[in-house]
Amino acid sequence: MYKKENLKAAALPESWSRVVLVWVKPEIDGGRWPIARSQGEPVEVTAGFVVDGHEKLGVELLYAHQSGYEQCARMTLKYNDEYEGRFTVAELGVYRYRVRAWLDRFATWQDQFARRVRGNESAYELKSELLEGAALLHEALGVASGDDGERIERYIIRFENGDTEAGLEPDVLELAQRNDPRKGAVESRTLEVRVDPVPARFSAWYEFFPRSAASEPGKHGTLDDAAKLLPRIKELGFDIVYLPPVHPIGISHRKGKDNATVAEKDDPGSPWAIGGKMADGKQGGHKSVHPELGGIEAFDRFVEQAARNDLKVALDIAFQTSPDHPYVQEHPEWFRHRPDGTIRYAENPPKKYQDVYPFDFESEHWQSLWIELKSVFEFWIDHGVRVFRVDNPHTKPFAFWEWCLGDLRSRHPDLIFLAEAFTRPKTMYLLAKLGFNQSYTYFTWRNTKAELTEYAEELFQTDVVEFYRPNFWPNTPDILHEYLVHGGRPAHIIRLALAATLSSAYGLYGPPYEHIANQQHPEREEYAGNEKYEIRNWNWNDPHSLQPLMRRINRIRKENPALQHMRNLRIHVTDNAQILAYSKQTEDNLVLVVANLDPHHVQSGWVHLPLKELGIEENRSYEVYDMLGGEWYFWNGSHNFVRLDPHVLPVHILRVQRTVRTEKDFPLFQ
Amino acid sequence: MYKKENLKAAALPESWSRVVLVWVKPEIDGGRWPIARSQGEPVEVTAGFVVDGHEKLGVELLYAHQSGYEQCARMTLKYNDEYEGRFTVAELGVYRYRVRAWLDRFATWQDQFARRVRGNESAYELKSELLEGAALLHEALGVASGDDGERIERYIIRFENGDTEAGLEPDVLELAQRNDPRKGAVESRTLEVRVDPVPARFSAWYEFFPRSAASEPGKHGTLDDAAKLLPRIKELGFDIVYLPPVHPIGISHRKGKDNATVAEKDDPGSPWAIGGKMADGKQGGHKSVHPELGGIEAFDRFVEQAARNDLKVALDIAFQTSPDHPYVQEHPEWFRHRPDGTIRYAENPPKKYQDVYPFDFESEHWQSLWIELKSVFEFWIDHGVRVFRVDNPHTKPFAFWEWCLGDLRSRHPDLIFLAEAFTRPKTMYLLAKLGFNQSYTYFTWRNTKAELTEYAEELFQTDVVEFYRPNFWPNTPDILHEYLVHGGRPAHIIRLALAATLSSAYGLYGPPYEHIANQQHPEREEYAGNEKYEIRNWNWNDPHSLQPLMRRINRIRKENPALQHMRNLRIHVTDNAQILAYSKQTEDNLVLVVANLDPHHVQSGWVHLPLKELGIEENRSYEVYDMLGGEWYFWNGSHNFVRLDPHVLPVHILRVQRTVRTEKDFPLFQ
Repeated sequence: MYKKENLKAAALPESWSRVVLVWVKPEIDGGRWPIARSQGEPVEVTAGFVVDGHEKLGVELLYAHQSGYEQCARMTLKYNDEYEGRFTVAELGVYRYRVRAWLDRFATWQDQFARRVRGNESAYELKSELLEGAALLHEALGVASGDDGERIERYIIRFENGDTEAGLEPDVLELAQRNDPRKGAVESRTLEVRVDPVPARFSAWYEFFPRSAASEPGKHGTLDDAAKLLPRIKELGFDIVYLPPVHPIGISHRKGKDNATVAEKDDPGSPWAIGGKMADGKQGGHKSVHPELGGIEAFDRFVEQAARNDLKVALDIAFQTSPDHPYVQEHPEWFRHRPDGTIRYAENPPKKYQDVYPFDFESEHWQSLWIELKSVFEFWIDHGVRVFRVDNPHTKPFAFWEWCLGDLRSRHPDLIFLAEAFTRPKTMYLLAKLGFNQSYTYFTWRNTKAELTEYAEELFQTDVVEFYRPNFWPNTPDILHEYLVHGGRPAHIIRLALAATLSSAYGLYGPPYEHIANQQHPEREEYAGNEKYEIRNWNWNDPHSLQPLMRRINRIRKENPALQHMRNLRIHVTDNAQILAYSKQTEDNLVLVVANLDPHHVQSGWVHLPLKELGIEENRSYEVYDMLGGEWYFWNGSHNFVRLDPHVLPVHILRVQRTVRTEKDFPLFQ
Repeated sequence: MYKKENLKAAALPESWSRVVLVWVKPEIDGGRWPIARSQGEPVEVTAGFVVDGHEKLGVELLYAHQSGYEQCARMTLKYNDEYEGRFTVAELGVYRYRVRAWLDRFATWQDQFARRVRGNESAYELKSELLEGAALLHEALGVASGDDGERIERYIIRFENGDTEAGLEPDVLELAQRNDPRKGAVESRTLEVRVDPVPARFSAWYEFFPRSAASEPGKHGTLDDAAKLLPRIKELGFDIVYLPPVHPIGISHRKGKDNATVAEKDDPGSPWAIGGKMADGKQGGHKSVHPELGGIEAFDRFVEQAARNDLKVALDIAFQTSPDHPYVQEHPEWFRHRPDGTIRYAENPPKKYQDVYPFDFESEHWQSLWIELKSVFEFWIDHGVRVFRVDNPHTKPFAFWEWCLGDLRSRHPDLIFLAEAFTRPKTMYLLAKLGFNQSYTYFTWRNTKAELTEYAEELFQTDVVEFYRPNFWPNTPDILHEYLVHGGRPAHIIRLALAATLSSAYGLYGPPYEHIANQQHPEREEYAGNEKYEIRNWNWNDPHSLQPLMRRINRIRKENPALQHMRNLRIHVTDNAQILAYSKQTEDNLVLVVANLDPHHVQSGWVHLPLKELGIEENRSYEVYDMLGGEWYFWNGSHNFVRLDPHVLPVHILRVQRTVRTEKDFPLFQ
């Protein structure tokens, strides 16, 4: 009968396991993309495994740096078939990880044996079970090495002699588990972690135009002038100094002040109109430095000076050209042409941008174009740059970025790329997946409590946090939000504090921000008298500016590990729609931020904290210290009252003293 | 320079597209499992596609029945790079679907061209653009067939003559889109839909023990006795009649009344202890019918009688044996043995179940075992059974079920398998993914508003709804919940109404439920005097029982298409924690259920409805008809008051009259 059935039957599986992997996390798009971590961070892996029946599973996490040996960590059961394990990524580059599970037959046997003993089964039955246990130990013996072999053999003898005690010992379990042949183990696919340098996660960026750095008003500043500002920027607590493009600027169709279609004779042009005349009269492009900024030698001095101040330099890479770029003459095949043979300038009909030529990434000659564009990064890497702010990456092919960033990173795993992609969410997230370490965000347009809460939860409490690192900017040369225009100084304080504490990476277009120079262009959501088109003069050391506040906030960030992470953000309930409260914690540090979002009026209300989740003991008072205002408060229980006057200080950044102080808090007693 | 770079560079991609697929839904575990639908249901597919830049995309859905030609449906843009399309699964078996997208260059061109025209670009510029449009039409010409070729040619001539109007016509867009060569199209992987018969989604099940069907008290009923009850079951509105195992019952270690370890002489034993003596004195097993039930001939008559009553028969398949099963003698290799050679009975140490032998699915002879077990289904399929309730599938290997159900279904796509898997969620969901059409659930233990809300949202408003169909049972021979014990008749009404309207598939262990025979066993959460171990006598036509209510509820389900689906469930807000409100809608039918969950006290409160989502006009009153109580109410706006007395009728099942009545509601005027 079986034969006949056999003919009809679908093919039986060639191999199968009673254990099935349900999922492993983190895993982005089925393993298509790596997750992102920074050096020293833990990777917490969870996996769902099921088995028919009631057997216990052995589950382990296997991981390795690209250049290292595979390590193994046992995973522990949390609940409902969910196992967890973790490893730390100590080196830059790529780690790989996977999980595997098998029937832990010995642990299952021992658990049942213990219950048989407690249930007073007969000596005959226990002895029979010990023989089954001995059979499992024989299997372990087959793979044991070193000491373990002998120790297992001794247990086998005791089992075969009916020694009940031997069957119950934790030691035999440990031996059997360590030497389990893992028969029928099932494995997940291998997943990847891209490990970035720490500033990819934790950094404060300061943007300014070096041409505005001259000490003499109206004069075109040089990179040597700009270098003189570096100690100040360092002293304010920033980590990365970001320069708009430093290349020669085109003359043809140059834009005038405030984006005027026709430039005046002395207008310096937009740094994003790349390609123009060099000091030697030749045309220079993406691998040249504007002669009035001092040329490549001044740039090298600037980078050196930054390194001395422990600052990283971020360079703006904008893949487009002015009509005066050497590529236009030398490689017309890299641009699109109209039927009459002219090169297509940028357009959004009926708007025309005749000063900008986009590249044609789909040109027949795309390979030489792509290789040349990658070499632009390589040129600046050779000049000591490790951080790039990439202009409009979402208007260049995703495949280009995946190839270009992947190749660069294979030789320079310490690179950081910030995507200036103000576009729709799926595109922003895709750019992060394929290699951008950080991204600009919608933060500038999220100003209410509901908007900030929803956005923060999307960024920090979903899978997005596994691959996308938001860099929060309250302003940029392109964006000056109404909130800052109308909210004045209190609004600037609020937005700075939010940016610097919601995300662990934030940035400022510094000069106008610190001077509350918030006059808006009449037609566009950007600064009037925009530095993109003209040289401005700033007082670089104004005690009435926001500089003291910036200095304090950056110091708070450096002193509080909780603020150096993103995935730990939790929003808390308040009973006032203008008061936003959130916390971040690490094992030893708990910071609570309470912000009045109303820049015009005093707001007060109750903040509700989930004490248990925050590790705060119930039923006792605890101290909180406002690191911004410099005041101590005694709080009590989960509900506490706050009152914030925007004209005094609209934000508390509170360090919460979680533990009752004991001797070990006082070094004298140690 | 390029050459040198080329050597260092990572390999350029061999092919790439500007369009990238972000995701496609529904997709279960990256396409590892099919989604489940029933005949005639729509499959709504959404896909996220992104492109660098601002081009429009052409997106389409491709789908086919396993035996048919591929069809194609254009997908439309919803928002944020998300496209949607749908198809209907008309035939049983497997459908396959995938999505693809490409740059819709002509649509992009026409959109920009229209903006140029509106922006009053010069005739020279427009003509130049028309030439670009003509080039795109030439590409379409390359793939056009029939009429389209000539029509495109005529447009090319008009374009080349600078006919602005031609460039703006919708007709040329349609032609170009239909004949787009779809260069650089990207496709998702191919995904599957398993199409089940409608009762897999929409059915009411009635369980009873045929041996209790004799008209004479205490006598062992036969399947012929049971067949006499079929017209009644049909008349009550049920679709599937489910029988516990009908096989010979073992004598060795037979359980007595209420699971007593030793049986009395006349105790009939548990139908799940399969394998025992046949009428001819031989031992019978899974392919035999208990002699006292009338043997296989009586079974065939029962199935025939059920078909006459338009009822399906569901058979219980329990893969385990009593010690008296013929397999035990003939195939000892299919069981596990102890070191002393005896077969291992079922155990959960220190508990022993000596009347049950589990199979050893991992035995060396697993292949012959698996094939034999599959042949059990085939035997009953040959005897007209199409519905199986599978006992404890989670204690048999997942690989077995995937193979067994897949093979059976390849020849019998009309089969329905209900998984009796009372286990942890991941396992229940995995069984559904690998082929069980329906599953038992935690419904029995979800009694409060919070519990029911959370559970319903998990089942009906997450991806779970794509593959898992819950069959809600208020009771089973194994489970009698405290809620029914203490809540009496009102509790029975509430739970029946909830089961029958929350899920579109529900079932009752009928006889004790309709008679509120809710006496609980002192130690276990099950019925006292349990029919699993003894013959009971029921009054099959008692007007004081719940039979009239069951009849009405089943009729309401049949008359209201909204109740025949699962994925349309929406929970609504009420201001009383004892009042649960939810709705289901189809295009033409809106049903609102309001239940008082408190079986002891009158409860009243306000029900809040999202009018827009429910398609109810604002600012006017509308009629709702309580199909259970037989009363009309006038409701107004989104907030309406309800008051439910559990001793009168604890539940409203309201049909909502959404549209203002017009002439077409009155046939006389048509």
